[in-house]
Amino acid sequence: MALAPHIDEDGATRVVKGVLDDSKSSRGPAKVPNVWRVGAHRPEYLKSQWAKLRIVLEIGSLDREVKEIVAVAVSATNNCDYRLRSQTDGLRSLGMTDEQLVELPFVVDFFNGFNASSSGLEVEYESPVLADKDGS
Amino acid sequence: MALAPHIDEDGATRVVKGVLDDSKSSRGPAKVPNVWRVGAHRPEYLKSQWAKLRIVLEIGSLDREVKEIVAVAVSATNNCDYRLRSQTDGLRSLGMTDEQLVELPFVVDFFNGFNASSSGLEVEYESPVLADKDGS
Amino acid sequence: MALAPHIDEDGATRVVKGVLDDSKSSRGPAKVPNVWRVGAHRPEYLKSQWAKLRIVLEIGSLDREVKEIVAVAVSATNNCDYRLRSQTDGLRSLGMTDEQLVELPFVVDFFNGFNASSSGLEVEYESPVLADKDGS
Amino acid sequence: MALAPHIDEDGATRVVKGVLDDSKSSRGPAKVPNVWRVGAHRPEYLKSQWAKLRIVLEIGSLDREVKEIVAVAVSATNNCDYRLRSQTDGLRSLGMTDEQLVELPFVVDFFNGFNASSSGLEVEYESPVLADKDGS
Amino acid sequence: MALAPHIDEDGATRVVKGVLDDSKSSRGPAKVPNVWRVGAHRPEYLKSQWAKLRIVLEIGSLDREVKEIVAVAVSATNNCDYRLRSQTDGLRSLGMTDEQLVELPFVVDFFNGFNASSSGLEVEYESPVLADKDGS
Amino acid sequence: MALAPHIDEDGATRVVKGVLDDSKSSRGPAKVPNVWRVGAHRPEYLKSQWAKLRIVLEIGSLDREVKEIVAVAVSATNNCDYRLRSQTDGLRSLGMTDEQLVELPFVVDFFNGFNASSSGLEVEYESPVLADKDGS
Repeated sequence: MALAPHIDEDGATRVVKGVLDDSKSSRGPAKVPNVWRVGAHRPEYLKSQWAKLRIVLEIGSLDREVKEIVAVAVSATNNCDYRLRSQTDGLRSLGMTDEQLVELPFVVDFFNGFNASSSGLEVEYESPVLADKDGS
Repeated sequence: MALAPHIDEDGATRVVKGVLDDSKSSRGPAKVPNVWRVGAHRPEYLKSQWAKLRIVLEIGSLDREVKEIVAVAVSATNNCDYRLRSQTDGLRSLGMTDEQLVELPFVVDFFNGFNASSSGLEVEYESPVLADKDGS
Repeated sequence: MALAPHIDEDGATRVVKGVLDDSKSSRGPAKVPNVWRVGAHRPEYLKSQWAKLRIVLEIGSLDREVKEIVAVAVSATNNCDYRLRSQTDGLRSLGMTDEQLVELPFVVDFFNGFNASSSGLEVEYESPVLADKDGS
Repeated sequence: MALAPHIDEDGATRVVKGVLDDSKSSRGPAKVPNVWRVGAHRPEYLKSQWAKLRIVLEIGSLDREVKEIVAVAVSATNNCDYRLRSQTDGLRSLGMTDEQLVELPFVVDFFNGFNASSSGLEVEYESPVLADKDGS
Repeated sequence: MALAPHIDEDGATRVVKGVLDDSKSSRGPAKVPNVWRVGAHRPEYLKSQWAKLRIVLEIGSLDREVKEIVAVAVSATNNCDYRLRSQTDGLRSLGMTDEQLVELPFVVDFFNGFNASSSGLEVEYESPVLADKDGS
Repeated sequence: MALAPHIDEDGATRVVKGVLDDSKSSRGPAKVPNVWRVGAHRPEYLKSQWAKLRIVLEIGSLDREVKEIVAVAVSATNNCDYRLRSQTDGLRSLGMTDEQLVELPFVVDFFNGFNASSSGLEVEYESPVLADKDGS
């Protein structure tokens, strides 16, 4: 059970209803995702979050699929059950297979580990580009 | 200064030298990255880390560039200076622009935030697919 | 199920019983919170943890409510179910509303995101105070 | 050095210039904070981030100071140098003393620790409110 | 339910079957741990992960038990339910008692907290060894 | 520069001076570690932190060295420069070699990675002990 009750579309103000309608249509006809129904207790925040999500996913030069993959990578690193399940459903709807959905967390696994050993040993980075320049 | 001294190629055993040579050629002719020179104090670990890195980056069906992007996303989430600088140099060598290198952390920003509010509100995920089935 | 069994007040030593009694009275007449019942396997640790908790919440110049808010912010960032539920119950008993309990994780969301993009871009901070001095 | 170059106000588009001007005035007359100058490579993202920041800090029922305190708590948990320095400067400008600026990370310390032991022991939370009901 | 289906030994390729057999025998006669059954969708990754695990646990000069303790410390810090339960079962099979299994997360608690206050106050470390040298 | 000024022993109250003296003697004759000099702005907190540190390191059945190893594992996972340097100096003074100081972060690396893939795939743990019982 979430820490605050869900808000239904029926009880929503106009601003909230706009976001809930948008969020519903973004994932097929079925349902308003719970995260927006809980967030609806703060309409301006909800609207700003939704606006940022749309910009993040729809504007720029990285592919939509790449951004959804980044979302899974971040959510696996943070161990966020909600977003892992939500973004994985999203990736499946974009055509990703079981094999790819298992490959991705292994990549995330490797770099979480490599972060811990690189930082844990306090290794200093030297750019190979600068090294080339030094050598020329 | 790293927490253990760098090991030079000259002083390396055959196993270590193999990894150091490979790591050097992977980034142009210049230098063995420091992370491998420090790791060389434990040859078997070094070899196993290098083997896993190559599998992660070279085998599977996700693009190499996507995997490097995932590496940046994970490293930004974990705030790992070494890997952020290393993987960003890698992405630049693959042709990524300043605009894309700024877009990526904004995507990472959004999902780190969304993780915190989704988990922080203890929202439960309901799959829209299941919802469809319920409605049919 | 916790990774070690709960210890009952009946079976507790005098030191443990003192902490369990205190912890019970801090949340109304009902129950010893489970976290103290599990911690009771190490009486000195339990006592030291309880002592630190009381100092943190009761001594100093920040308001008790602010400190409970900080506890939720930290627990949302770390995705700790136990403390999120416990501290939220605490905030409700201090009078916080659903609207405020949803506002808080949105603030936490924003700064978790901003941390990831600030660190992820390796931006260097310059104090506006120093800038003023430079400019004067 | 940040991973992408700073953008100057002179070279900025109208949208970017609007955000940079706002960000400058929010911290006195001196300077555009570097985080916005780097973010300016992606104008729509910059604008959306700025819009969310203003809503988070200015709208709602929690005090502005409390929100800045939450920002420090989150940034200490994530070990984000930029935001720690920026938000601490902010708290100092709101009148916080050295004593309070040391008290706050101790509170953050305690709850980061308590998160680790509560989660690390897999303790299950039972609401004292529900317990009361069970007992009635 | 995991994000990808379990793979049974019957349906596994030769490479996968080798890892599954090894993983089974490492924990008594009973079962292949689920984490390997899910990972089996990517045989080369599975094999590389298994190889690294064996090197990490079996080679080097730190005791096996110390390494399992480190695994619990890391998993408590990251709040990873699967590994906490798995490594705790491992420590119990090595003879650790309830008292020790509660002592360990308290140690982890303390240092997670101390990390947050040391980093959160941006304290700079000075080596006592260097100090000695300065004083000589 | 730390976010609050260091407090000198000369300017300290009696309570603070007691902790500073203890902290100094714990690391040889040289110096009070900076973390205690900054914490001294809040004497009760300082005292409580010092008390908890002593209990954590000195009481219980895990070896002192194992606890210092746990401290490094946690600090590498959290990327805390201060504590990594401090605890590594501590481990060196206990006799640990470069080889061991490199082995440890590799173990931490592996389990940080394994946490990310275990959690990231939402794998459910089944105890082999329970499996044994089922099979009997």
